Order: sequence, then C-alpha cells, then structure tokens
Amino acid sequence: MSIRQSFIPAAILAVLLPAGAALAQSAPTVVNQSIAESDVLGAQKAWCEALVNISRTGETQGQAAAKALAEKVIDAAYGYQMGAVLFKPTLTVAPQTFRTTRAGALAYFVGGDQAFPKDNGFALKGWTKCEAKNSAIFIAGDSATTMGNVMITGKDGKVTTVDKTWKFVKDDAGKLRIVVHHSSLPFTG
Amino acid sequence: MSIRQSFIPAAILAVLLPAGAALAQSAPTVVNQSIAESDVLGAQKAWCEALVNISRTGETQGQAAAKALAEKVIDAAYGYQMGAVLFKPTLTVAPQTFRTTRAGALAYFVGGDQAFPKDNGFALKGWTKCEAKNSAIFIAGDSATTMGNVMITGKDGKVTTVDKTWKFVKDDAGKLRIVVHHSSLPFTG
Amino acid sequence: MSIRQSFIPAAILAVLLPAGAALAQSAPTVVNQSIAESDVLGAQKAWCEALVNISRTGETQGQAAAKALAEKVIDAAYGYQMGAVLFKPTLTVAPQTFRTTRAGALAYFVGGDQAFPKDNGFALKGWTKCEAKNSAIFIAGDSATTMGNVMITGKDGKVTTVDKTWKFVKDDAGKLRIVVHHSSLPFTG
Amino acid sequence: MSIRQSFIPAAILAVLLPAGAALAQSAPTVVNQSIAESDVLGAQKAWCEALVNISRTGETQGQAAAKALAEKVIDAAYGYQMGAVLFKPTLTVAPQTFRTTRAGALAYFVGGDQAFPKDNGFALKGWTKCEAKNSAIFIAGDSATTMGNVMITGKDGKVTTVDKTWKFVKDDAGKLRIVVHHSSLPFTG
Repeated sequence: MSIRQSFIPAAILAVLLPAGAALAQSAPTVVNQSIAESDVLGAQKAWCEALVNISRTGETQGQAAAKALAEKVIDAAYGYQMGAVLFKPTLTVAPQTFRTTRAGALAYFVGGDQAFPKDNGFALKGWTKCEAKNSAIFIAGDSATTMGNVMITGKDGKVTTVDKTWKFVKDDAGKLRIVVHHSSLPFTG
Repeated sequence: MSIRQSFIPAAILAVLLPAGAALAQSAPTVVNQSIAESDVLGAQKAWCEALVNISRTGETQGQAAAKALAEKVIDAAYGYQMGAVLFKPTLTVAPQTFRTTRAGALAYFVGGDQAFPKDNGFALKGWTKCEAKNSAIFIAGDSATTMGNVMITGKDGKVTTVDKTWKFVKDDAGKLRIVVHHSSLPFTG
Repeated sequence: MSIRQSFIPAAILAVLLPAGAALAQSAPTVVNQSIAESDVLGAQKAWCEALVNISRTGETQGQAAAKALAEKVIDAAYGYQMGAVLFKPTLTVAPQTFRTTRAGALAYFVGGDQAFPKDNGFALKGWTKCEAKNSAIFIAGDSATTMGNVMITGKDGKVTTVDKTWKFVKDDAGKLRIVVHHSSLPFTG
Repeated sequence: MSIRQSFIPAAILAVLLPAGAALAQSAPTVVNQSIAESDVLGAQKAWCEALVNISRTGETQGQAAAKALAEKVIDAAYGYQMGAVLFKPTLTVAPQTFRTTRAGALAYFVGGDQAFPKDNGFALKGWTKCEAKNSAIFIAGDSATTMGNVMITGKDGKVTTVDKTWKFVKDDAGKLRIVVHHSSLPFTG
C-alpha cells in the first residue's frame, strides 16, 4: 500500500497504515515535504482574500473587528513565531520601515497603535479586489520565493500595482507561512 | 538592540522587542535556525538517557509504565507526526524490519503488540548505560546527520556496540527530532 | 512564456528566454529545485548498475580497470567533495567501519589499498544483478532519504539482501549525490 | 583528529585526513554547511565593493571595461546559473521591472543593451561608497535572508538610501550567491 502525502496528521496515518504492514514488500511509504507551485499560488490567493476581508470587516464592523481578524490572519499566514519576519510593507517610512515584529505588522495593517504613529491601517483603505501576478517562482524544495506584481483595487475602482517579493516556508503542520515580504511602489522614473 | 536566538517564542519576543524599535538604526535582529553541533550531541545524549530510563522504569514499575514512558519519548524525540520516520532498529527481522510508523517503533522498544509478534522490547533488556561516539557529523544547515557507534551496557556489565545513523531536523518549536534512524550490529566477517 | 525546469544551464536559458521578455505580463518563470521521487529511483538504479558494471569490468579487464571505473562512479555519485560522506558499508569492520573519505570508499569497493588491509573489494564479487526495494522515501524538499532493501545477485544466482539507507542531495548541476549511506546485513535473530 | 570546516576541497581533505584513520576512535569529522552571520556580512560587503568598483572602472576605463567587470561580478555573486534570480532592481520600470535573467541584470548595471532601452547603467552613476545596514538577518540553515537599508554615496557626496532584501544560498564551492534581490526607494508618504 502506498501512502502519498505532503503532511498527514499522525492520527489519520494510524488509520491508514495497518500496524505492522510489511512495507518493504509492497509499495513504499512516500512522504514529500516539497512545496508545490499550487501551494504557493494558494497562499498568495489566501493573502489577497484576507486583505479584502479585513477591509470589508473594517467597513462593516469597525476597526476593532478588523484588528481581531488581522491578528488571526497574521498568526495563521506569517511566521512571527519563528523569531522574526522580514517584512517591508509598501507604505512605511523610516525609522519604522521594517516590521520584524508581529506588533509592527498588525499596526501596519489596521493602525491604532501609538507605538507606530504614522500607521493608519493599510488594510482599512476599502480594498475590494486583490490579485497576484508572478514574474518568477523559485521553489528551493522546502521554501519558495515569488516575485511579481500585486494589483489591488480600491472602492473607486482604481487599481494600485505594487512590486512584491514573498518567501514561504512550510510549518510543522504543512501550512505555508510568509517569512519574507518586501513590497514597494513601482519606480516611476 | 540585538536579539540573537535560534527560537524564541513570540510571547517572549513581544517583551524583548520594544514595539516600533527602529531596528535599522541599531544592531539587527538575528534569527538563526541552523543546527549547532551541541544541539546534535544533546539530542544523542537525550536518546541514550531515555533508553536507560525506559529500561529502569520497566524493571521497577513494569511494562505498562515503560510503555507509557516510551510513548512520551517517541512523541518528543521522533518525527512520526511528519508522516513517517525511516527507522531500521537493531534487532528487527523481515518482513517487519522497517518501522516507519509510531506503532512499529513503540512495539520495538517495549513489545507487547500482537501486530509485531517477534518484538520483545529492546528497551526492556535492562540497559544501565548508553553512550554515542560519532565517526562523523554532517550539518546541512537545517538538518544534521550523524554516523558512528553507540555503546550500551547491560545489567551484567557487558557492552553491546551498534553502528548507528541518525538524521535530526528542527521542529517549529526549535527542538531536534529524529527523522532517520538506522541501527545495525557490526559485521563480524 | 513559461520556463519550467529543475536545472537548465544558463547558456541554454539565454536561448530560451528572449532578453527583456516582459515576464510579469505572461506566465511566470518557474524554477523548481525539489527532488522528485523519479530522481530518487533513478539514482538508486544508477547505483545498482554501477555496482554490476564494476563487477563485470573487474572480471573482464582486471582490478586496475575496475578501480578506474569505481573512481569515476564515486566522483559522480557520492558527495565526498562536500567534505565527507557518512558511509557505513555492508562488510567493513572496526576500527575502519566508517568510510567518510573517498579513499575509504574506493578501498571498500575495489580493495588493493594497504591502508585498508581487510578490504578485498566488495564490487569485485561478481555481482550480476542489483535491485532496490524501498520501504519508505522521505523527500525533505532539497534532500531525499530512502530506507529499504537492496537485493544483489551473485554469479551463482544466490541473492544477498541488505538493509540500506541513502540520503541524496542535489548538487549545483542538478544531479543527485549520495551524502549518507548506511548498509547492513539483516539481523538474523 | 577533528576536521572542522564548511567546505574543504576534496584535494585538500585528502592531505588532511590520513587514509584509513580510525575516526570513530577519535574526535569526529564535522562538516558544517550552515551559513554564518559573518558569511552574510561578507557577501554584502563584497556586493557594495563591486558596485563601487564597476563605477570607478566605468569612469576610468569606459563602459566596455565596466561591462566586462559587471559580467564577472554577476557570474560570481548571483545565482543565474540555477535557472533564474528573483531580481527587482531599484530603478527599473514596467514592463521590464523584474530581471530574472543574467542579460537583464547586466543591462541594469551597465546599460547599453537595446533589449532594455530604458536602462542607462545604474552602476555607472559614479558611486564612491556603499554600505549595508541590516534591520534583520534570518539564517534558515542553508540559506540566509537580510532586510535593511543600503546607503550609496554619489560623486557629489549625496547619499541615496534604498530598502533592500537579499537571499543568499551556498553553492557547491561553499560560496554565497544572491538568489533573491528586491531593492526599492523608500516610500515618502
């Protein structure tokens, strides 16, 4: 019997794998932790959807609800629990350009943190649509980096394009997390 | 301020890092997930101590207590939750030589599993001492493999030497886990 | 235009990729360094074929020719140029059990090295067939480890089965190399 | 005898390691492929020095000489031979923002390529000094990513500060190569 998976929780495996199965006699167990291109595209799509969701929540339920959602998004999609995330948001300015801490990321997305006085909540700008368009995807086996554009649409239908680099790793549960995120407005000459 | 760590839980980081610290102005945050040689030696020592502990527990408290301890040891020190561990114990025979499942590892260490009828509990053989002596340690950054001898001493003082290969990876909590373990009696010509 | 490859030499890429292609406008460049299961099976097959080839060469052309071939095989299939290979051959004995150096591997395969007086050339035993049967394959993205049996057939048709663990990594040229190799005769109870 | 190194060429190892050394009896061979923080700082310093060197060469010897030097720098310091580099230079514009090919990188640094008509040679702007100041360094074992500022000084003494992310990997020779490079002018509000 062949078990092919990226990550199957041990509890499920216990059901799938008959104890004492003479594995060498049959097809091998195959565990593959590689990141697939589809994993990467899915994580980008999830980031975009989360941005629009936080925007919508802010408009319909206020900043506190948007902040609560942003905390969930950050905890699920970024790797701050690994010690730091290398995050350069689109609109931050010195001396608080880089947001290596969870608090800095949260302040950027929803504002309202006196420690980051220039932040007014990037995710609260009424975004209605978000789409990633990759120039290149580099899968280094257990991590993947993408570079390209992200187009986000405002309430007025105006599209803002940013240049964006993301690096993803798989956590122990098999879920992609952002560990590097550099976003910048295009150079305009 | 410089934070140098392998893995610091986010909750602690929040205390250590003043929110909004102008990091680029001072010393950088440094996160280093590399495995150190001392990590590897520590994990080997812990494995040895666990083997002796299970032996002692079996002798003083019986098989059920030894089994409960062995489960804790396996769950803490091996990577079965990643899908499989490539484990070839010293004394197993075909068709159950390879123990890629947690159940197979547990049966090997403490026996008592009808699905593995030839297992009589390797960890219950009254081991009193265990020591690893490496021939080589290869640290590939985020994983480390060792090859060498492990000498285990029985109640009668007799030392059994095995040839052993271990591969360790760091889990999300920064703890080393065994993902490959090949143990064999020396060839005697 | 989408370039999908594991490793395409830069010289070829220069032809495939029109300079200045507006990549973000079309399908992304995708580089994937992950090891595929087929890469692993291919490397195992190549190891087996090399063993039989060295055997045949030794029989038909003598030890010197076999040694020259073995050197080519070791240089192409193992990772000694990375500093060491963790190699525990099937039939070595203490104090020369572990062959972390290229010289030690070569002596094991073809003998004739006074520094390894007990080696008589494992690859010169007249092997006619070799086949790997995996119990498990664990692909950690940019490395892969296999554990299982290898069955090798002698001139007399007798099959010897060994328990074998291999770890492979991809070198800069995209070729798999063995960096860990633990082989042992099955425990016979 | 203990051999401790990141990467020692096989030819040197052959001298250092006595053939047949009974390694398990003594201190183990230790190979460590992890990237050290000093490796990262050295690679950043080398990038800065290369930029100033190309500038100086352009001024004293002309564009052709600067181009020849830039080619050497790109071939030594970037990872284009791995299939692509995710490179977003500071001053490029759509539809040629991203320079995933060697030709695109070369055009950016020294211009003169009709396929990249808007490039006038970033490295030919008379830079006299270049310094990196990291906000964070994340070493993931066998790769390392930095994020922070790079300050480059022009002939007139004016300092331009950019926000920069670099990801480095070690090649087979043990040398760091840039595989991701995102550079952008600071957001000015």
